[in-house]
Formats: sequence, structure tokens, C-alpha cells
Amino acid sequence: MGGDHAPGEIVAGALRAKEELGVNILLVGDPQQIKAVMPPKINMDRLEIVPAEEAIAMDEEPLNAVRKKRKASINVAMDLVKKQQADAVFSAGHSGAAMASALLRLGRLPGIDRPAIGTVFPTIVAGKPVLILDVGANVDCRPKFLEQFAVMGSIYSQYVLGMPEPKIGLLNIGEEDTKGNDLALKTYELLQKNQQINFIGNAEGRDVLSGDFDVIVCDGFVGNVLLKFAESLGGVILQILREELPQGLHGQIGTAILKPNLKRIKQRMDHAEHGGALLLGVDGICFIGHGSSQAPSIFSAIRMAKEAVDNQVLTRLQSQYQILQNEAD
Amino acid sequence: MGGDHAPGEIVAGALRAKEELGVNILLVGDPQQIKAVMPPKINMDRLEIVPAEEAIAMDEEPLNAVRKKRKASINVAMDLVKKQQADAVFSAGHSGAAMASALLRLGRLPGIDRPAIGTVFPTIVAGKPVLILDVGANVDCRPKFLEQFAVMGSIYSQYVLGMPEPKIGLLNIGEEDTKGNDLALKTYELLQKNQQINFIGNAEGRDVLSGDFDVIVCDGFVGNVLLKFAESLGGVILQILREELPQGLHGQIGTAILKPNLKRIKQRMDHAEHGGALLLGVDGICFIGHGSSQAPSIFSAIRMAKEAVDNQVLTRLQSQYQILQNEAD
Repeated sequence: MGGDHAPGEIVAGALRAKEELGVNILLVGDPQQIKAVMPPKINMDRLEIVPAEEAIAMDEEPLNAVRKKRKASINVAMDLVKKQQADAVFSAGHSGAAMASALLRLGRLPGIDRPAIGTVFPTIVAGKPVLILDVGANVDCRPKFLEQFAVMGSIYSQYVLGMPEPKIGLLNIGEEDTKGNDLALKTYELLQKNQQINFIGNAEGRDVLSGDFDVIVCDGFVGNVLLKFAESLGGVILQILREELPQGLHGQIGTAILKPNLKRIKQRMDHAEHGGALLLGVDGICFIGHGSSQAPSIFSAIRMAKEAVDNQVLTRLQSQYQILQNEAD
Repeated sequence: MGGDHAPGEIVAGALRAKEELGVNILLVGDPQQIKAVMPPKINMDRLEIVPAEEAIAMDEEPLNAVRKKRKASINVAMDLVKKQQADAVFSAGHSGAAMASALLRLGRLPGIDRPAIGTVFPTIVAGKPVLILDVGANVDCRPKFLEQFAVMGSIYSQYVLGMPEPKIGLLNIGEEDTKGNDLALKTYELLQKNQQINFIGNAEGRDVLSGDFDVIVCDGFVGNVLLKFAESLGGVILQILREELPQGLHGQIGTAILKPNLKRIKQRMDHAEHGGALLLGVDGICFIGHGSSQAPSIFSAIRMAKEAVDNQVLTRLQSQYQILQNEAD
């Protein structure tokens, strides 16, 4: 029920995932609205509509709304995961509400102090994305939170994004281990000592899109500023291209010829095409799509969710932290 | 003596400024090297070479180097400002050394706890840049530091960049005054109460390039990450254009026709073209250029320095803080 193009694009993406990925789909929401956007002769194999009486609107205060609207679609969907009737949940709706619902219904994984939101950015190396976390769930962080983000990010990068031995970086303002604010300096020490991850050092702002790192950890304030800045670039570049390209006849001809290329460039820059955000650290697989998500984004989020389930990401996280726990005892 | 293209490009930019802006130029450094890059029949009116025996290299620890190399070119240049034999200093060398030298030789302005580095970003509105500060001088900030950045930024925006009634924003993760980390929440309160500035609210990452703000304040950690990320974009975009544009004959023709436009786009995205960084809060006018600065950047930095001097930015800052001081008494 959530997102600018719900339920039409959500259903379209989910149906494509059912056919191409062989997954079972549970569509949670108002059955009438959902049925209205379905093709008339739909094959209902591996497809179910789970009714939910309410939905949370974008302008509602998330924690209150999630608590008050117990039958909201996001809560019903989380409960399906909780009751193991579903393996993963995806929402393109209110991301704060999805996060609150996940925390309240699923709870945190043992060993995790704070769940984080991770986002996949494209890099200049085609097909080699970088996972940035946290991008907004935790604005004031302690060093051990960032260490947990690094461990969770490493597992997601390896088993969901398919990066062998993910290279982990700490977002910082210099390469040297003496650089950074108090949080970064203390986190650097923890990451360097951590045997569970392949920490390769500080990542500066200029390294984010370089393809040199598979995972970059930061506090949710910096991550959110960076994410929203990056999200605005697609539009900024299009605006500049619009102003700079069509000057004179030659320019117009060039622009016309290049139109499909320019569209592809925008897609490549546009991180929303890359599947939205991952909620890491709750006791269930959760993906949060951009409000503007259309069918291709829904499809790729479901594909990532399937990877997470097939590769037992949650079990891996739990055993990772069990080891840490035992070592600490 | 500092920067990748010193002294050739520095001298070229300075000589252009002398001719076009009517300023007096003092070139500080090794006379032999400087003379070697000067045109043979140079007019020495309003031009002087001030010898300096040493220079600080890019890999030196700034504070130590500035203290030990008392005759380094940056120290000699700062002393000229201190002794009022120069009105402003520009360096494209080690920015940490320039900052340390300014602090040690010129000292802070009364009322300023921490000097900040400000950088001018282009926005999607042509000719309407935004001043971001701090971009790296202070990685752990207190709310009153950010308030001081806002006041200094407002004066620089008005009297150096020519923005009437500069619109001030606080870099944050949401529009509402309830959003943000501890630093942002407390800074918001201070900025809202401050009568000296036109504070218009929180600026999210997506607002940085929108042209809606003239000045955006943040701590030096976030600002530095954002600056270096933005600096990397010119190269990232060129790389993507290179990969995406020349596919097939049509694409190649289009690319050839558009070549001059693409170059202009890169220049427009490239913040280094926009004149480098300002050191705000020391008792003197200081501009710090990018190490890669070439003559046009040097020229535009000198033009900004002249604006700062002509419009008595330092006196304005001092009287601003004198008023605040008196009100507090």
C-alpha cells in the first residue's frame, strides 16, 4: 500500500519476481485495490493476497502510527515474517514506519545494539556497487555501533550483493589512522582489531564512488546527508545537461542522437534504480524501497531479499555474534 | 611555492589579477624560481618578489613544519599581512600549513572560538553559488562554533560573494526542527534566536546544490566528506560519459559534436574552478586554493580576496562580535 506508485507498480514488480525468480508472493493490503491493478487472467499459483485494513500515510509520526494502527499493512507484513509465514518483507511506504514496525514486531538480532539502514550506491566500476551504512537510522552513534554495522555490512555484501571478501572502509576525512573526529578515531581501532571483517582503512568522500570499497560505515547523520546529496545528483546533472547541451544547431543534433545514452546515464547515476535500502540488524529480512519505486526497483529489491534468504544471512549474523559473545565470555 | 603547478600557474594568475583588477602583487618564495616563470619583459609596477628561504612540502605535519620552518613562504606571507604590508594572503600549498600559519601568525578574531574553512559550491542556479562551512578545520564542533560559522558565512556571502541578505541553512537530515543529531538540534535553537543572520531552516543533502541556500553550516567532518565527494563527481561523470557515450556510429558522431559542451559541463561541475577555500575567523584575509589550482582559479581567488578587503569584511566581523559582546555584558 506504500509508495507513490502503489499498488500498481508494487504488484507489477512482485508478479515479475514471482515468474522470474520462482518466489512465493504475499501481497499485503486492501484486496480490492490490489485486485484492481492485477491482470484479468492472473495465475494465482504461489500468489496470495493478505488483507490489511489500514495503511500508514507518509505524513504520520512513525512510532505512534505503528503502535496505534495495529492492522496497518506494514504491521501485518512484519507479523507474517515473525510467524515464519514469510521469509522477508518489502515496503516502498513510510520508511520510518517500516523501521519502527520491524523493531517492534521482529526485534533486534542478539548482539546488535542498533539496527542500521544500508543503501547500495553505484560506483564508477560497472557492476560493483558499494553498500553504505548507516544512512539515517542512528544519528548519534558510538564506536561499537559502527563496528556492528561493519560486520553486518560485510555479511550482506558477501551473501546478498555477491562480493567475495568484502573490503570494508570507515568514512573519514583522511587516509591516515590519526585523522577524524572522536567517533572515527575510536571506531578505527575497533575495526582494525576485528578479525571477522576485511577492514582496509579509511574511505574519504572521494573514495565513495571509486569502487575501491565494498562496504563503507558511517554514522546515520553523515550517511543520510551523503545519500540525499547523491540522490539529488541525477536531477542536477539532467538540469545542467538541459542547459548546456542544446545550444546551436550542432548541439541540438548531438543531443538528439545521444538521447538514449543520456537516459542510460541518468539511470546509472540514479541510486533508486539500484533497489532501495536494507534494514540490517532486526530479526528478519527487511528491504525498504524508495517512495518513488517502480516495478524494476521492486523486482530488484525482491531479488536481493531472495539472495538474503537463500544465503541464510540472518543465521550467519547470529552465529557471527554468538562467536563474538563466546570469545568475550 | 605551493601547489601542483607552482610557481608557473600561480604567477600567471597573479599577473592577470594585477592587470585586470588593479591590485598590488607580492610574490613570496624563491626569487630564482619565480623569475624563471615570468615573461621576459615584465612590467614591475605594483609587483614585488618577497624572498622566502624555505617552503613547506605537502607531506609535512603542518603545525610542526610551520613552527620549525620560520622562513617558509607561507609564514613570510602571513607576516606581511600581520605587519599590514599586505591586505590578504593566498596559497595553493599545504592547506593545513596555511591554516596553522594563519592561526599562529595572525591569531583568531575576537569572539571567534574556532576558525573555519569555507568552500564555494556551484548550484543548479547558474551564478548563484553556495558557501559551505566548515569543510575540515574542526571535526568535533560545539553548537556555538556552528553559530559563529553562520555569522561569518553570512558576512562573507554578502560582502565577498555579493548575495544580499544571505539565506542561511543548517545541514541536517530533515526539514523539521525536531530532526538531527544532538549537535544539529542545539545549533538549530541558536541559529533561530540569532538576529544577525537570516536563518531559513535545515538544509538536507539534496538541498545543497538547489540554490535555495546561500550559506550552509555544518561540522568539519560532514563538510569535508561532502566536499571530497563533490570534488570526485567531475571525474566520475566524465568516466561514465566516456563509457556510455561512444557506443555505435551514431553515438560517436553525437559525442564529437558535443565535445565542447561536455567540457563546459565538467567545468561547471568542478568546484575547483570556483576559487578554492576561504579561511574565516582569523585576523586577516586568507584564501586557500586547491593544490591543483591553475591560473584561472588563482585569479578568481585573488578577485574574492579583493572583494573581502574592499568591503571591509574583517571590520564587519569584528563589529558584529563587538555588538554581541556588548549585548552579553
